Amino acid sequence: MSGNSPRVQRVIDDIESRIACRTAPPGSRLPSVRAQAKALAVSASTVVEAYARLVAQGRLVSRPGAGFYVAATAVAPLKLAPQGPPRAPDLDPLWLSRQALEADPALLKPGCGWLPPDWLYQIGVRRALRGLARGNGAELADYAPPQGSAALRQVLVRRLAHSGVEAAAEQLLLTDSGTHALDLIARVFLSPGDVVLVDDPCYFNFHTLLSAHRVTLIGVPFTPQGPDLPAFEAALQAHQPKLYLTNSGLHNPTGARWSPAVAHRVLLLAEQAGLVIVEDDIFHDFELSPAPRLAAYDGLQRVIQTGSFSKTLSASVRCGYIAARPEWLQQLLEVHIATGFGGNRLAAALVLAAITDGGYARHMEQVRQRLAQRREQCLVRLAALGITPWLRPDAGMFLWCRLPHGRDAAAVARRSLEQGVVLAPGNAFSPALRAAEFMRFNVSQCDDERVFAVLRNALRAP
Amino acid sequence: MSGNSPRVQRVIDDIESRIACRTAPPGSRLPSVRAQAKALAVSASTVVEAYARLVAQGRLVSRPGAGFYVAATAVAPLKLAPQGPPRAPDLDPLWLSRQALEADPALLKPGCGWLPPDWLYQIGVRRALRGLARGNGAELADYAPPQGSAALRQVLVRRLAHSGVEAAAEQLLLTDSGTHALDLIARVFLSPGDVVLVDDPCYFNFHTLLSAHRVTLIGVPFTPQGPDLPAFEAALQAHQPKLYLTNSGLHNPTGARWSPAVAHRVLLLAEQAGLVIVEDDIFHDFELSPAPRLAAYDGLQRVIQTGSFSKTLSASVRCGYIAARPEWLQQLLEVHIATGFGGNRLAAALVLAAITDGGYARHMEQVRQRLAQRREQCLVRLAALGITPWLRPDAGMFLWCRLPHGRDAAAVARRSLEQGVVLAPGNAFSPALRAAEFMRFNVSQCDDERVFAVLRNALRAP
Repeated sequence: MSGNSPRVQRVIDDIESRIACRTAPPGSRLPSVRAQAKALAVSASTVVEAYARLVAQGRLVSRPGAGFYVAATAVAPLKLAPQGPPRAPDLDPLWLSRQALEADPALLKPGCGWLPPDWLYQIGVRRALRGLARGNGAELADYAPPQGSAALRQVLVRRLAHSGVEAAAEQLLLTDSGTHALDLIARVFLSPGDVVLVDDPCYFNFHTLLSAHRVTLIGVPFTPQGPDLPAFEAALQAHQPKLYLTNSGLHNPTGARWSPAVAHRVLLLAEQAGLVIVEDDIFHDFELSPAPRLAAYDGLQRVIQTGSFSKTLSASVRCGYIAARPEWLQQLLEVHIATGFGGNRLAAALVLAAITDGGYARHMEQVRQRLAQRREQCLVRLAALGITPWLRPDAGMFLWCRLPHGRDAAAVARRSLEQGVVLAPGNAFSPALRAAEFMRFNVSQCDDERVFAVLRNALRAP
Repeated sequence: MSGNSPRVQRVIDDIESRIACRTAPPGSRLPSVRAQAKALAVSASTVVEAYARLVAQGRLVSRPGAGFYVAATAVAPLKLAPQGPPRAPDLDPLWLSRQALEADPALLKPGCGWLPPDWLYQIGVRRALRGLARGNGAELADYAPPQGSAALRQVLVRRLAHSGVEAAAEQLLLTDSGTHALDLIARVFLSPGDVVLVDDPCYFNFHTLLSAHRVTLIGVPFTPQGPDLPAFEAALQAHQPKLYLTNSGLHNPTGARWSPAVAHRVLLLAEQAGLVIVEDDIFHDFELSPAPRLAAYDGLQRVIQTGSFSKTLSASVRCGYIAARPEWLQQLLEVHIATGFGGNRLAAALVLAAITDGGYARHMEQVRQRLAQRREQCLVRLAALGITPWLRPDAGMFLWCRLPHGRDAAAVARRSLEQGVVLAPGNAFSPALRAAEFMRFNVSQCDDERVFAVLRNALRAP
């Protein structure tokens, strides 16, 4: 038997991919032969042959007189399909996440979003492990209480108060990570087809996370003071979004801080539009002084705050949190119990011990100083390559930079990867692919001279 | 201002609850005033007033000439609404899960699904914690590789082989718990409105977990050899389910083991119907000899296996796994990265150290012996109260029992709770509420004389 012709195969691939990402769910009717032929610019006979083959494979069912349907019993596991314009594989946010997690320790990773392991508070984690080994049995063996450790929630209450957010311990839910916190919120507040606003640029795993919820992402251009207000207002009008997901402490990837005026104005617009805002506060402990927090201004009315300790304490000890108004927190808690049967008690005990041992505050003071030095060094080295910062952040690990002479960041990243350097090209952060000339650098991962040598070569290449 | 009349309030409550559980999603049209009045057996003017108040609150929008719509911007967080017949609060699976997790340590919990903390392998966990405190920095600080610890996956490969399941380490994904494993599978394989088969009775958190995915549960009566085959076949025909979720090692709550013939027949039926089967193997280490495994017979083609160490090692150290065919595993992995950004590295390291330290096998041997003794003692004590086992399991912690003289288990559980004893009434496990006279006992939690004294009184009460 001969294989399919390329045209027939193209029709088959198109249908398979729509089944896989569930835009053509089981039981749904396919376009008529004529409509399909027109849509894919092929002949009707090509479509007839493709449909016939898919029927033979049991993927489609033909109902004479009624058309072709996706077989109800077709096993079609969900395939994550990020929304928006088509992307090259190396700009796919999921690919970037996987690559960073999988990367050989020998690779240099100025594109990754975390500190090197020896910058983290390992001494505190080790001490906490030894303490737990001597600790009580329930802590080591039993399920956690539903909202998680009361003692850690009490510590978080004080931490939130530091940036002006007033919350009671009952308004906090411990989660397995910052990402898990956002995922629970998406499960409770979003339905497939809903629209979610994000910043353009924003943290690239937001794209991937939200694609798992089958929602549509709309990016609002980000300015050094927060989202662009006219664009934000226009997006509210045009798309009726359910949720806006942002970082308001230190913004990822830009390192920007919101201005009080933008925060106030965004909250007013959200109030009018019935919008829920999620503020991911993952870089809290990197700030030199507290930036405006939406959750503080709003009093946790329509703002939900999330965070974790992955960036400062350990990414191996998984523990995050959600702060929300009481009735929303109860619904988040229900979904948390249903889908995880309680949280990570051991991780919460380790985090509590480590951040309250007296050394953590000192450790973070050193991290902030070290980041300030590295940031300055990194800016000098990047300037020598003609790479300029969009903003000079006063805290955090990121520099969001423009490459010289309209260089394409994706091509530069591709060439650098061949030389063992993992970079983070701008369009991975941009829902609308508006950041082709940008790149995010993690100053804590730029210590090795080879980073700049490889980058120099990659920028030179045609 | 006066409050709403009780009738108006009832209409408002009805609409609010339909918005909350999304049977009336944002943007959907409400029934006409006349139809609503008829449906709720109230007057048209009552409905008009209720609609007007909801419009005033911004929950509904009135479109003159077209009717009333759920406001597109109404903030309506998902409320978990288990499927099936209405249940009293104390038969609600979510309520039971919460209650067991929240329970005061002073309460006696013969209804819970785990061993007392001092039965678990705490000595191993303590040793593992001390070992990790001396261990390498990446283990303590860095993100996990995407599929989780290769060393632990290798150990799991051998463990699976013990019950005849052949899997390569590449076919395994570590998760944050057994429940988390099931949740990932549901996310990848199910869409809202799909039908899922479960056993009747089955583990009660299956109901809660699946309600978070907005699918319909159909229970198939369970026999001492596995699901009832004629009922299973009829359910396939009648409902075209996507998934069947079961325990095939030791069944929860009955303690039954599948017969090879039933396993073979179910797999044949699944093949014909294009059904995916998920086998939750959470009680693997309790078995005296390996029961038939669907994943073994099927070679992980359409069967996916899950498990964890919560029941034997620690419920505080969260770590589970999924074994599946390679292309399915990759899709599960993508959703895992998208929604959790990698797994719990520290927990995996602890589990690996504890289960390979030489003492774990001995410890589990003792647990199995101890359970056998407790089971016999418990059967004698229950017999004295006229409570008889549906089956005498040869392993595990559960006894699924019938109460004497048609006693209502929910009423008995309610009275016992007042006396500080948490029981697990049968209908919490039964999707069709077919188990009103049944109760699940955990023999490891029945050591205290008060359990039987309270039970005796509760059975006597009118």
